[in-house]
Amino acid sequence: MKKLVIFGVGLIGGSVALALRKAYPELHIVGIGRALQLHDTNLQTAQKLGVIDEIGIDLGQALESATLILIATPVAQTPAILQFILPHLNKNTVITDAGSTKADVVDYATSILGERVSQFVPAHPIAGAEKSGVTAANATLYFGKNVIITPIAGTNSTAIDMVTAMWQATGAVINRMPPTQHDSIFAAVSHLPHLLAFALVEELATRPDAQDFFKFAASGFRDFTRIAGSSPEMWRDISLANSKALLGELAAYQTQLSLIENLLKNNDSAGLQSLFERASAARNAWAHQQAITDKEQTDKQ
Amino acid sequence: MKKLVIFGVGLIGGSVALALRKAYPELHIVGIGRALQLHDTNLQTAQKLGVIDEIGIDLGQALESATLILIATPVAQTPAILQFILPHLNKNTVITDAGSTKADVVDYATSILGERVSQFVPAHPIAGAEKSGVTAANATLYFGKNVIITPIAGTNSTAIDMVTAMWQATGAVINRMPPTQHDSIFAAVSHLPHLLAFALVEELATRPDAQDFFKFAASGFRDFTRIAGSSPEMWRDISLANSKALLGELAAYQTQLSLIENLLKNNDSAGLQSLFERASAARNAWAHQQAITDKEQTDKQ
Repeated sequence: MKKLVIFGVGLIGGSVALALRKAYPELHIVGIGRALQLHDTNLQTAQKLGVIDEIGIDLGQALESATLILIATPVAQTPAILQFILPHLNKNTVITDAGSTKADVVDYATSILGERVSQFVPAHPIAGAEKSGVTAANATLYFGKNVIITPIAGTNSTAIDMVTAMWQATGAVINRMPPTQHDSIFAAVSHLPHLLAFALVEELATRPDAQDFFKFAASGFRDFTRIAGSSPEMWRDISLANSKALLGELAAYQTQLSLIENLLKNNDSAGLQSLFERASAARNAWAHQQAITDKEQTDKQ
Repeated sequence: MKKLVIFGVGLIGGSVALALRKAYPELHIVGIGRALQLHDTNLQTAQKLGVIDEIGIDLGQALESATLILIATPVAQTPAILQFILPHLNKNTVITDAGSTKADVVDYATSILGERVSQFVPAHPIAGAEKSGVTAANATLYFGKNVIITPIAGTNSTAIDMVTAMWQATGAVINRMPPTQHDSIFAAVSHLPHLLAFALVEELATRPDAQDFFKFAASGFRDFTRIAGSSPEMWRDISLANSKALLGELAAYQTQLSLIENLLKNNDSAGLQSLFERASAARNAWAHQQAITDKEQTDKQ
């Protein structure tokens, strides 16, 4: 890999850059600027920190010789960026992204890139942090983390290999699945929990006596609602992009809540206990498995 | 204060004992044993660690000279314990508890203790940890934490003063409110979030392909579901004891979810953004205020 062009040099894009510098010492990294409303101050910081070598003022020049183009902006910007890229897209250049939803990105790419969609490998790294921006970027963000790539029938196999190698170089674990399966899994384990946390805080915050409640909220509330502090724009985009799967998960969850409501109404002590036992055992087994996986990754590192 | 008798020398009761040792060096602390199904090994550990001075094998002797009796067992044991106490209750002895629900405890105390209910001060310390048992107890658990006391019309004011002084000696901040207000607040900020977290894990865990989902759950899921790893027995008891307030909160939450469901169905980008913005701002303002309060308490300490 000779030249990497990154749209969006924040936590996600910046951390890829830092990790790849170690794997490919000769790699030239360009961050894309102003034309796509990226903040110049952020790009200047990225250059000062050595995250990127060059700010891509001239879009055409930056793109035409790129080995790999990584789109790491908020996902709603992806269609506009693909349109910018298309006229400058060399036939050997590979494009990938890091968006949290995949079926919508595949649809955009198919309609915008046409037959050149074969050069596009949709991907989603399952890593992030409460912090954002290039100052939060670090070379080990992806170490031991899952990255999901969702190729379609027309995706070029050399393109898949290049994106796989790129993520492996960051220390990530690669998984492949169809875009719709990706969106269905993340609707359940990520998008729905965010919606539920936003809903709880909204419901409390809009009460006239909200402060009487917030005053006594403690550590359980803190952890449960942490994700309700996430970016409203990002979660609006994800919710709309994945609304079909998310509505399905929301309906299943509402059914579950109605079951619990009935257990409470019927004073069903045994029913509640058995439900709480299953959930508690499943949650603790999951956390135990996560701890084992984390330790294995730390040991490798 | 001369003699403190504690039913349930675990994290909660043990931490009270350790904190009070500092404030009242002459205090004699008795832990109550076998008759009420407490584990002897736990009490022996408590004595070895210096948390208690004596294991209360003889219930009558232990209780008759007590200045203060603290009930810090799971809340479902409270009625039986009050019945045990009553025949041995000196007229100057004060009883308090540390249960997570208050209206039910007040009802039990009123019906079991009769006019002696004037000696009972219902209380709830808002502190805890994922750990449990006396080995997790520590003298600073309550420092800067809220303790809510919920006296009723007949509660003796000297009893209130004694329990207030006891909690202040642990470093806690005392709040007073009626039992029903307590239960209504905690239904919203604690009991409902627990129920919602149990519901999410249950809904996922009972799918045939649950592992495909759990495999990709990450840090947002981890924090959101942490409280679903809590004790099933304890949360069964709390849910049933406070079912009326909890059902009210659950209904309000379901209404909120239906609103969000409609925003998604209508592809209402502005509506979702404005809801997520309000929730995110409220959650971050709450966390900011908590950080200030925590820092003030740490500075005092």
